[in-house]
Amino acid sequence: MAEYTELSTLGEFGLIKHLTKTVELKNSSTLKGIGDDAAVLDYANKKILVSTDMLIQGIHFELAYTPLKHLGYKAVTVNASDIYAMNGTPKQITLSLAISNHFSVESLEEFYAGVYLACEEYGIDLIGGDTTSSKTGFCISVTILGEANAKEIVYRNTAKENQLICVSGDLGAAYMGLQLLEREKTVFQGDEEAQPDFSGYEYILERQLKPIARKEIIEQLKEKNICPTAMIDISDGLASEIMHICKDSGVGCNIYEEKIPIDYQTFKMAEELNMNATVCALSGGEDYELLFTAPLDQFDALTALAGVSVIGHTVKESEGCYMTTRDGNTFELKAQGWSNFTSDIEKNND
Amino acid sequence: MAEYTELSTLGEFGLIKHLTKTVELKNSSTLKGIGDDAAVLDYANKKILVSTDMLIQGIHFELAYTPLKHLGYKAVTVNASDIYAMNGTPKQITLSLAISNHFSVESLEEFYAGVYLACEEYGIDLIGGDTTSSKTGFCISVTILGEANAKEIVYRNTAKENQLICVSGDLGAAYMGLQLLEREKTVFQGDEEAQPDFSGYEYILERQLKPIARKEIIEQLKEKNICPTAMIDISDGLASEIMHICKDSGVGCNIYEEKIPIDYQTFKMAEELNMNATVCALSGGEDYELLFTAPLDQFDALTALAGVSVIGHTVKESEGCYMTTRDGNTFELKAQGWSNFTSDIEKNND
Repeated sequence: MAEYTELSTLGEFGLIKHLTKTVELKNSSTLKGIGDDAAVLDYANKKILVSTDMLIQGIHFELAYTPLKHLGYKAVTVNASDIYAMNGTPKQITLSLAISNHFSVESLEEFYAGVYLACEEYGIDLIGGDTTSSKTGFCISVTILGEANAKEIVYRNTAKENQLICVSGDLGAAYMGLQLLEREKTVFQGDEEAQPDFSGYEYILERQLKPIARKEIIEQLKEKNICPTAMIDISDGLASEIMHICKDSGVGCNIYEEKIPIDYQTFKMAEELNMNATVCALSGGEDYELLFTAPLDQFDALTALAGVSVIGHTVKESEGCYMTTRDGNTFELKAQGWSNFTSDIEKNND
Repeated sequence: MAEYTELSTLGEFGLIKHLTKTVELKNSSTLKGIGDDAAVLDYANKKILVSTDMLIQGIHFELAYTPLKHLGYKAVTVNASDIYAMNGTPKQITLSLAISNHFSVESLEEFYAGVYLACEEYGIDLIGGDTTSSKTGFCISVTILGEANAKEIVYRNTAKENQLICVSGDLGAAYMGLQLLEREKTVFQGDEEAQPDFSGYEYILERQLKPIARKEIIEQLKEKNICPTAMIDISDGLASEIMHICKDSGVGCNIYEEKIPIDYQTFKMAEELNMNATVCALSGGEDYELLFTAPLDQFDALTALAGVSVIGHTVKESEGCYMTTRDGNTFELKAQGWSNFTSDIEKNND
């Protein structure tokens, strides 16, 4: 049986010290990390990128089927994704947690192991935070800082007409992973002997539980001297994010259903659940892939990149935002996202 | 009767837009605020200070007796206080909220009105955040960024032996205000006709509900060319904060009970509740006053400042941390803070 040490045995300051004792600052921009009223950073002549995301138990994750290490990893990843979506490099995070006193020290260690793994992967220093008790659910708030040279920063509102629309990786898988977990949830909560059946669906599960921010796409683009004209990360589904770029940039778009990258497991799961895989890609969310626009003359360079798909192009704003389906019909894109405050899946990365 | 517009009528993006439509960026370091994957800042040759604080319903505040505007103000203030405690100037915040869908648009407007009032007061730009639904309580997470010249930053660990120990304002009032609110809580929750009786206690109530970060103390010190040798803000009670400075700096201290600034209303409330006002100052918390050390030769300059009290001096580490009481006894200081994870009042500003 797993060890269980009550949080109260360490006290608040002791707990923080225990959980952060292995932190070694790796970035030269981090002058002072945890341990004072504020961290101290020096970005010299670089610009500072700041973003924040909150994950709430029962809304963004279910502890019943989310391993804490994965959750810690995901909390950092969804923030790092925002910095990459600005064409920047993540450097520091603060991490605030509200936790029930039913949590054990060991379970928090698991969570922090995931945080540190992600910090390692993305080159991030943990520089501060706040740990408090919660009378209700587990609440995670991460703020991330990243750097970029002024000229390299890519906004949402700078796409032009007649440019390529590209996405990294594949879409809809995280949402299908969530549907699978929800279906098997009864197994977790019910009979202890029963085991949920995930065979053949490992990829979509991983996409839901341990999403990855697309650092290497940004690196590839830099290597090839391709600078996106506008960029956003896909946290709310492709449709919603394309609409953001188009609306903010004052352009329209045409995308092609057959060009949207969708994994085999996503298709298979969608079929099993009588859902449309394209709808999942358009509205599913939590893919954390990058959506960007680029000049037409970069077509060859872009299609040569591993993990990048050209899915359409921008048009005049007056022509609207449309998708051409496999059978040649067109329909207008609508940002689904979540449309009311009772929805279970929702995100906001302002 | 107050208006009640359901959050779902605006949708998430509409809600954020509605609540932030009045934001006008005032700092030259804020290049881009709300509206992209990340905000963009330029601190030129200044250092960046970063701090974060989380406020949780039922732990840090009770909605039963906390006006939402005050709560918004307080959420910014407790963060600004951390930047002042580094001898810096607050510049930007991100604000993340998890809210029950029982909240109305109007109540969120109230909360934001308090946030904006504090932003105005401290010269802060709201540059981003996250708004999500919560199945349980109201959860507020603020991350603050501030600037300072490298040479001006004041840490906790730089006090020397034989220096003055000073505090701003007065202590224990916020804790007494909380006790008063808890006593009168039954009135809020019970008979609608009954009114809680706060007459004569307006000051301690305000100290609890609408604390103020001590911007003008920092400004005064700068004007008089007094640079503290170590500084911290008092969020967990005087004893805990003095111990932080002493432990981190490798010094001991002697403070004098009679020198600890305590307001008349704090004394009066403590007496009414059979509590010791000095204990409230030492362990009460949430005062958000500044505690700092300074060279002995600054004594005259410091005592001439409005709102600053010299309460003792640092000694050799081996001599320990002691308080001399009014009757001439000495006792060893202990950091009370909150010692276990079930305590109702707790703070952490790492």
